[in-house]
Amino acid sequence: MLYLIPVTLGETPIDRVLPAYNKEIVVKIRHFIVENVRTARRFLKQIDPGFPIDDSTFFTLNKHTTREEVSEFLQPIAHGHPMGIISEAGCPAIADPGADVVAIAQQKNISVVPLVGPSSILLALMASGFNGQSFAFNGYLPIDGDQRLKTLKQLEQKIYTEHQTQLFIETPYRNNKMIDDILKACKPTIKLCIAAGITTENEWIKTKSIAEWKKNIPKIEKWPCIFAIYK
Amino acid sequence: MLYLIPVTLGETPIDRVLPAYNKEIVVKIRHFIVENVRTARRFLKQIDPGFPIDDSTFFTLNKHTTREEVSEFLQPIAHGHPMGIISEAGCPAIADPGADVVAIAQQKNISVVPLVGPSSILLALMASGFNGQSFAFNGYLPIDGDQRLKTLKQLEQKIYTEHQTQLFIETPYRNNKMIDDILKACKPTIKLCIAAGITTENEWIKTKSIAEWKKNIPKIEKWPCIFAIYK
Repeated sequence: MLYLIPVTLGETPIDRVLPAYNKEIVVKIRHFIVENVRTARRFLKQIDPGFPIDDSTFFTLNKHTTREEVSEFLQPIAHGHPMGIISEAGCPAIADPGADVVAIAQQKNISVVPLVGPSSILLALMASGFNGQSFAFNGYLPIDGDQRLKTLKQLEQKIYTEHQTQLFIETPYRNNKMIDDILKACKPTIKLCIAAGITTENEWIKTKSIAEWKKNIPKIEKWPCIFAIYK
Repeated sequence: MLYLIPVTLGETPIDRVLPAYNKEIVVKIRHFIVENVRTARRFLKQIDPGFPIDDSTFFTLNKHTTREEVSEFLQPIAHGHPMGIISEAGCPAIADPGADVVAIAQQKNISVVPLVGPSSILLALMASGFNGQSFAFNGYLPIDGDQRLKTLKQLEQKIYTEHQTQLFIETPYRNNKMIDDILKACKPTIKLCIAAGITTENEWIKTKSIAEWKKNIPKIEKWPCIFAIYK
């Protein structure tokens, strides 16, 4: 059994964003595949201050982890031990490397059990007021100015041709540049939702038209942010 | 303050899929916008057997609810009362009519707070092993045979041109027909994830290639199901 274990998005109490059931499952696991060992240990201590961290095994996942290594990581399951994937923030395998591990687990016919937790993408979509019957998450857009404007134009086009909400992210220190680029690329009537610091004390989710945003451009440098556009 | 209140997906204990925090919020609310009054009442009783249902107001939302009616529904917020949207299953405003209410709330500059809960779309994506950096949810596909095959071909195309996981749903009694159509429309190497009964006792999530599925075609008639395809 491979459990996908979501964590909090930033400094948030566990009970704010995770069901009690997750704790019941996690305390039985001793073998973890993690993006960052320090974050994972801290999370386990938060879940249960008495968690036997020193009796647990952590396999670290990064961009360079090979298929063969992942297959070895999953060995404990063959010996009857449940395992868990813990990502850096939010839900494993959504916008992070856990997906490759899950793909291999599926090939090996291992049962994969996703646990409920906070996804900034989904929470932003819920609070945006945009189409939730058809939506696409596009990850990071190109950094290069021309390429980025071109991509924004393409996403804007899809809003009309496919009636599909378009979501994307940016690293926090580039958020203000991203907002400028969206305001430059999109038509005045397009609506932009900026969802920052989701589930934290600083949560701030606002939808306005491009024309309205231009009258009062927000500055959001420090918080992780989800952007969504729709007509 | 307008809270978006997720509910369980089918017969699942509250603690399995909802954070304790949601209860803290919900018990303070007396004005609800709901898809189905009976389901909503039942949910509130599950959250708190002593919930004062009879002292609460329920506004029912359906396809025919007009903009003006929704504006009236939101009146209690102007009088300082928190409100909640409760959908039929899962997360409000994702694949359900709540999104229109949220759009109007955003226009009225009402704070919208999405609470964490189970989304079958997101949980299926996590457990599929497919690309979680780029994905699209397409809702229901056309029912008509030719139109549906054409749409499936278009989604298959997007997997290659946009490297984007494609997700969609079907009403449970048409699941077997949907599986047949996917097996007919897609190339043998395409991978299909079938995620049924998510978060329930019958949860069953499997990813295989079209060629592999063809050797042993599953029958899934009764459970709500998410389908995802990727390369």
